[in-house]
Amino acid sequence: MSASHANASAPALLTDLYQLTMLDAYYTLGMEKPAVFEFFVRRLPAGRNFLVAAGLEQVLDYLENLHFTADEIEWLASTQRYSASFLERLSKFRFTGQVYALREGTVFFASEPVLRVVAPLPEAQLVESRIVNLLHYQTLVASKAARCRLAAPRAELIDFGMRRAHGAEAAALCSRASYIAGFDSTATVEASRRFGIPVAGTMAHSFVQAHEMELEAFRNFAKCRPDNVVLLIDTYDIARGARRAVEVATELRSSGVTVKGVRIDSGDLAVEARRVRGILDSLGAKDIRILVSGSVDEYSIAAMEADQVPVDAYCLGTRLAVSQDAPSLDCAYKLQQYAGRPCRKRSQRKETWPGPRQVYRQYDPQGLICRDVLCCEDETFEGRALLWHVMDGGRRMAHPPPLTEVRDFCAEELATLPIALSTLEHVRYSPAKVSDRQHALVAELDSIAR
Amino acid sequence: MSASHANASAPALLTDLYQLTMLDAYYTLGMEKPAVFEFFVRRLPAGRNFLVAAGLEQVLDYLENLHFTADEIEWLASTQRYSASFLERLSKFRFTGQVYALREGTVFFASEPVLRVVAPLPEAQLVESRIVNLLHYQTLVASKAARCRLAAPRAELIDFGMRRAHGAEAAALCSRASYIAGFDSTATVEASRRFGIPVAGTMAHSFVQAHEMELEAFRNFAKCRPDNVVLLIDTYDIARGARRAVEVATELRSSGVTVKGVRIDSGDLAVEARRVRGILDSLGAKDIRILVSGSVDEYSIAAMEADQVPVDAYCLGTRLAVSQDAPSLDCAYKLQQYAGRPCRKRSQRKETWPGPRQVYRQYDPQGLICRDVLCCEDETFEGRALLWHVMDGGRRMAHPPPLTEVRDFCAEELATLPIALSTLEHVRYSPAKVSDRQHALVAELDSIAR
Repeated sequence: MSASHANASAPALLTDLYQLTMLDAYYTLGMEKPAVFEFFVRRLPAGRNFLVAAGLEQVLDYLENLHFTADEIEWLASTQRYSASFLERLSKFRFTGQVYALREGTVFFASEPVLRVVAPLPEAQLVESRIVNLLHYQTLVASKAARCRLAAPRAELIDFGMRRAHGAEAAALCSRASYIAGFDSTATVEASRRFGIPVAGTMAHSFVQAHEMELEAFRNFAKCRPDNVVLLIDTYDIARGARRAVEVATELRSSGVTVKGVRIDSGDLAVEARRVRGILDSLGAKDIRILVSGSVDEYSIAAMEADQVPVDAYCLGTRLAVSQDAPSLDCAYKLQQYAGRPCRKRSQRKETWPGPRQVYRQYDPQGLICRDVLCCEDETFEGRALLWHVMDGGRRMAHPPPLTEVRDFCAEELATLPIALSTLEHVRYSPAKVSDRQHALVAELDSIAR
Repeated sequence: MSASHANASAPALLTDLYQLTMLDAYYTLGMEKPAVFEFFVRRLPAGRNFLVAAGLEQVLDYLENLHFTADEIEWLASTQRYSASFLERLSKFRFTGQVYALREGTVFFASEPVLRVVAPLPEAQLVESRIVNLLHYQTLVASKAARCRLAAPRAELIDFGMRRAHGAEAAALCSRASYIAGFDSTATVEASRRFGIPVAGTMAHSFVQAHEMELEAFRNFAKCRPDNVVLLIDTYDIARGARRAVEVATELRSSGVTVKGVRIDSGDLAVEARRVRGILDSLGAKDIRILVSGSVDEYSIAAMEADQVPVDAYCLGTRLAVSQDAPSLDCAYKLQQYAGRPCRKRSQRKETWPGPRQVYRQYDPQGLICRDVLCCEDETFEGRALLWHVMDGGRRMAHPPPLTEVRDFCAEELATLPIALSTLEHVRYSPAKVSDRQHALVAELDSIAR
């Protein structure tokens, strides 16, 4: 939870070499006037009709705490790439700028600014690599998780992603981003500690296998963890495992211990869940819940929900944590303006909209999103302005909101999606429209020789 | 580089809740006999004919340093899930076991043990989540990077993956894993500091845009960084950018500054590289190299190499760092034996080979891999045994080898791949064969009621 912790996982040198190279040049050239950069997603991946903004709090932590330690400066000196005067400046480096951003949990579309940094050019430049690194991953996971939530509005969703997330930080941030987007809990203990997310878990196959007999393993597990008995029933034979779960439940009822659920982790989950439900019900154990895991994603959830498969909780691991069907976003952090002069990149298929921007979101009478107007920052349109001023002079303008509040806000956001955008089918439609003044500014800038 | 650094990024609580639950139960039940777990990949992803083992050193760092801090114990106590006696044991927890593993850089195939842990059951169990987390990601990236290296045996390959890697740890480990597999350098400064990997970098579009004129930006960049002038030429118009690069090169020649290269980051890279090479050559700048970036992966590299496109260096970002076409591996860490009794999981499509295992690799007369025999640990076959004893009593048995040595070893390993396996086309063939005794053990175990 603490900022120092967040910082510990990412030293200032977690950046691209060219940031230091350019910083050095900017200082030498005296190019320190205000720059405006914006982070946005150029195009949505196939299989995404919208994205959910996440990662802002980690960006603000980073910006508030960013500094080069004595060890880092010493290491840079040892590379003999930099002058003493540059290292001297680096050792005093702090981020002193402004940040404007979408609230975490906001639904957004291609080309829309998610975050705007306004700061002296060297500062706004240096922070690019880590800002992209932080916003990219959590937005990726929150967007995937939101699709799971939309596919199963009432089922319990649990994050099991830690082991196959790409490294330690991704593991913890996967829990955070999926919780924002509507997951109920995570198996990752550290995420619970850092972010206060409810933690959940069952047992592993190894627990069953370490016992000679499955039934003994079930009894021992229930005896040792009477408050949360969820039994993994697929180590040897699912149907037999289900019957044994009922046997243990019956044995333990008199001692006040309840078998809450069984987990199925292999086979055709829909087929097995139905079969297990049948066995449990026929043995009078209608209150034992069914959890499924193993290659679960929004597509399999949607199929099971459509077929009314009796699943009470979906446990999502790998496919959530790596966003399997879309493991990256085509996102960028680009210079929009320097020293009051709007900038525009013209690279093929990577052209940018110029200047500082804002988005106004308009709703239909049912409260669903009907249009986003992407405009110049100083234009005004009907609707709600999406970018908020969140950092001033390098300091947060408010305490981070509780994560439960962010999660509630995200649920409200998802409820504003038109049906066409909220389904799993990919539609080639975006409600985002660019203002006339943005178009005019593009024409004006493109007429200038560079 | 330091173990403490590696540990800082992953607290002991970066684990799944069920590990703590099971640990508690094992202690209560007195189940602390030796357990054997193995990490392996069940099936290779479509698009992978082999994998490259990586991540072992981080696993050994983790195991040597694993402990629960006072803060962690205090937090666990605050959850009221655990007894005082369990927390007391946790506070003294250390890993004291044995580890056997493939050397980093080893080529391997489905079902083969990559790492074997032998330790008292609670110890061998607890470390599962983080071991999988560490081996999975680096193996994923090393395997992707090896394909890039095989596709371009002589070109320079640079890791640009930091910004879209999934979080901070993935960013640094992407550099490490790709370097092992044959990349030349990374843009990620922290990876250079931690692992001693050569660092490389150019300039960003923002540097060009912050100047009113592109030519002025090129001049200023060259002036400020005369030792490493690589100019990004696609901000506005690639052909014009190329001509300006030559103009700057000509201007600066008298002052002893060399323009080393130009980078192209958009458009059809093959078309643009040819066009730029033509412009550079026609203006007498045959020594200016061409770097390309932007959605580069092994497939586009192979296509450009086959067409003899004049590219000198490929810069790989997103597609490398997230392993875009295969962002996860179907890997597992499974109980192979407890208290001397071999174990086998029978879950559908997740069946395991039982007991502690070894792999013997056999070569044909040309030195190419012709067969891997997957066998019981105590069997002996012709060929080279792949699993080495690397940790004893919770301590490394040797200092980590220099990364350059690991990289050289990996190059030797890649040279032993039969042609069918080293191409980018996916073949449904594995040289791995299971020994008769393994098969007999499976039959024996499956005959026992569990």
